Amino acid sequence: MSRVRTLPIQTASAAYSMLLGEDLLADLPQHLGDIFGERPRRYFVVTSPEIWALWSEVFLSGFAADGGPAVLLLPAGEHHKRLAALERLAQQLATAGADRGSILIAFGGGVIGDVTGFLAAIYMRGLDFIQVPTTLLAQVDSSVGGKTGVNLAAGKNLIGSFHHPRLVLADTGVLRTLPPAEVRAGLFESLKAGLIYDRALFEFIERHTEALLRQETESLTHVIAESVRIKACVVSQDEREAGLRMILNFGHTVGHAIEALTHYRGLLHGEAVGWGMRVAVEASRKRGLPDTDADRILRAIDALGLPSLPRLTARRLLNAAAGDKKRIGGIRHFVQLDRIGQASVVNDLSDDELLQAIRRGLKLGQ
Amino acid sequence: MSRVRTLPIQTASAAYSMLLGEDLLADLPQHLGDIFGERPRRYFVVTSPEIWALWSEVFLSGFAADGGPAVLLLPAGEHHKRLAALERLAQQLATAGADRGSILIAFGGGVIGDVTGFLAAIYMRGLDFIQVPTTLLAQVDSSVGGKTGVNLAAGKNLIGSFHHPRLVLADTGVLRTLPPAEVRAGLFESLKAGLIYDRALFEFIERHTEALLRQETESLTHVIAESVRIKACVVSQDEREAGLRMILNFGHTVGHAIEALTHYRGLLHGEAVGWGMRVAVEASRKRGLPDTDADRILRAIDALGLPSLPRLTARRLLNAAAGDKKRIGGIRHFVQLDRIGQASVVNDLSDDELLQAIRRGLKLGQ
Repeated sequence: MSRVRTLPIQTASAAYSMLLGEDLLADLPQHLGDIFGERPRRYFVVTSPEIWALWSEVFLSGFAADGGPAVLLLPAGEHHKRLAALERLAQQLATAGADRGSILIAFGGGVIGDVTGFLAAIYMRGLDFIQVPTTLLAQVDSSVGGKTGVNLAAGKNLIGSFHHPRLVLADTGVLRTLPPAEVRAGLFESLKAGLIYDRALFEFIERHTEALLRQETESLTHVIAESVRIKACVVSQDEREAGLRMILNFGHTVGHAIEALTHYRGLLHGEAVGWGMRVAVEASRKRGLPDTDADRILRAIDALGLPSLPRLTARRLLNAAAGDKKRIGGIRHFVQLDRIGQASVVNDLSDDELLQAIRRGLKLGQ
Repeated sequence: MSRVRTLPIQTASAAYSMLLGEDLLADLPQHLGDIFGERPRRYFVVTSPEIWALWSEVFLSGFAADGGPAVLLLPAGEHHKRLAALERLAQQLATAGADRGSILIAFGGGVIGDVTGFLAAIYMRGLDFIQVPTTLLAQVDSSVGGKTGVNLAAGKNLIGSFHHPRLVLADTGVLRTLPPAEVRAGLFESLKAGLIYDRALFEFIERHTEALLRQETESLTHVIAESVRIKACVVSQDEREAGLRMILNFGHTVGHAIEALTHYRGLLHGEAVGWGMRVAVEASRKRGLPDTDADRILRAIDALGLPSLPRLTARRLLNAAAGDKKRIGGIRHFVQLDRIGQASVVNDLSDDELLQAIRRGLKLGQ
């Protein structure tokens, strides 16, 4: 077994670890035993048909022949992240006799993690669950921090709970079957983590862009570990997003608007956030972010390779952003960058400022 | 304004009050101001068309002309307590621009309270809400304690959260428009509270059955206050139902089975619990509950007036009870009565014992 890093995550309501390393998946049953003890528990793995086709053999290899988990399938894609899909999974759990002592395993990307975590939060008012993220985005970001939920037609993640996993097992070996676009999408969230909190991580990604895009293990592991460390640090100070945690939404106001207007089918979440960060950089530039920093960030974003944007108008994006749940009490909270490595939350960004930033950041005409 | 009683409810995670008295409803805005302060907040009331037709004028009378809440309607009936109805309400909230600072008001019976509380728990990962229960069952039981949720096809309350209201406003005047069957259904839950925890309440209901059924205010107010005091006392010791709180499920194993098999349309919840308590008394009689107590309880249940039971077999009820969520780790937890005023949770009740108790309690043949 190769080296395993243990990254601690501690919040007001939970304490758990991410285990990070190459080819950890086969050891899953051992880690489950460490956490949940010897008493037999029923495990249910929620995964996508694609992931299960690729990785079920390794996943199951460590379980006793009669001790493997029951498998529930959720089709891939953000448009399946809805209450109807959750209800189908819950009904399958009930039919299979899942009870309050059962344990769910989220084995997949961000959608699988969010839906499974929410299912665990509300099935019989709360089950334990663990995260086994299979995309870079899920490993660097969404598997950690306790946010779970589903989308409404009206917007993303409008329904959900805070519910932390008992363990996150991040196997970098699983990333080998990931399409290049998924790698890039994850790197955008890591770039965000560096931008808002840690200049060193930003510069590492800047320097190692090419190695990261071809999934060089050592660089990638460093980026995952640093991204998770930053997220854990932010979440430990503000689990419920009363203040500081909002900075994790850097680039997400417009990123979510792009996703909503394209019905979650046009771009990957990380790619939409990549475009959204371009907008946030332009807005920040007008509010004190030095031009040298702003230009450098735009170059770093573009170096990761943004896919072209679907045809959208700035005005429609502005309207879609107005319904974003980061508005509290009718006020829009916007995460602006003060300099590379430091962000703050402001509530006085006007519609006009945002509109101008959308036009510049997305390279739309007037 | 008539006398208002303030009943404190304190748990590991929350502290709030029930205000109990006659004709409190018109003072709602004042109580909202006391809790949520002067800063303008957006209120959304979730109610049924029937309740709103009867009580909207009084409900709105204390609000400023332009300061009343937005109204969301949920049709009455247990079969609307589903995720699909919740999603429709959430979508309406989003369309109306509800945000994390918005406050929900559950104005109705148990279904309205459970759905609205769950909506508050998961909309944007958590809003504040208050309960304004309009049925006796909701006033004596379901509006207090923080359990919220919806049903699955597979069973009742299988999806939900613990989420406490910030206030419960119980206006006994609203009960005047309640059908007699609803009064009886509520009294069964109060009888249960007495049976498991407080002999004096049981005896009070026994002595005042006739006055309670005709809704004599003073008796009814006493029963509501005592029922809530008992529930608060139990919940304060075990919010998450790790142990003691299970005793509140006395009569519910078979009560839920009756409801599930009749698709939540045959009997009111309290009536099903009335029948379920007959079964639980018969099971308890075989395990040490004195015959004099058992017979006395059956007389008290019957004096409240149980409606006739739909045609069900004992075997089907047993099978339906096997899927009840009070099973943990494959073990059935059953609440048995040791004597009037004291209950305990056992896990060794056999299928055969339960089957015999179902036959005796429901007066079914072999």
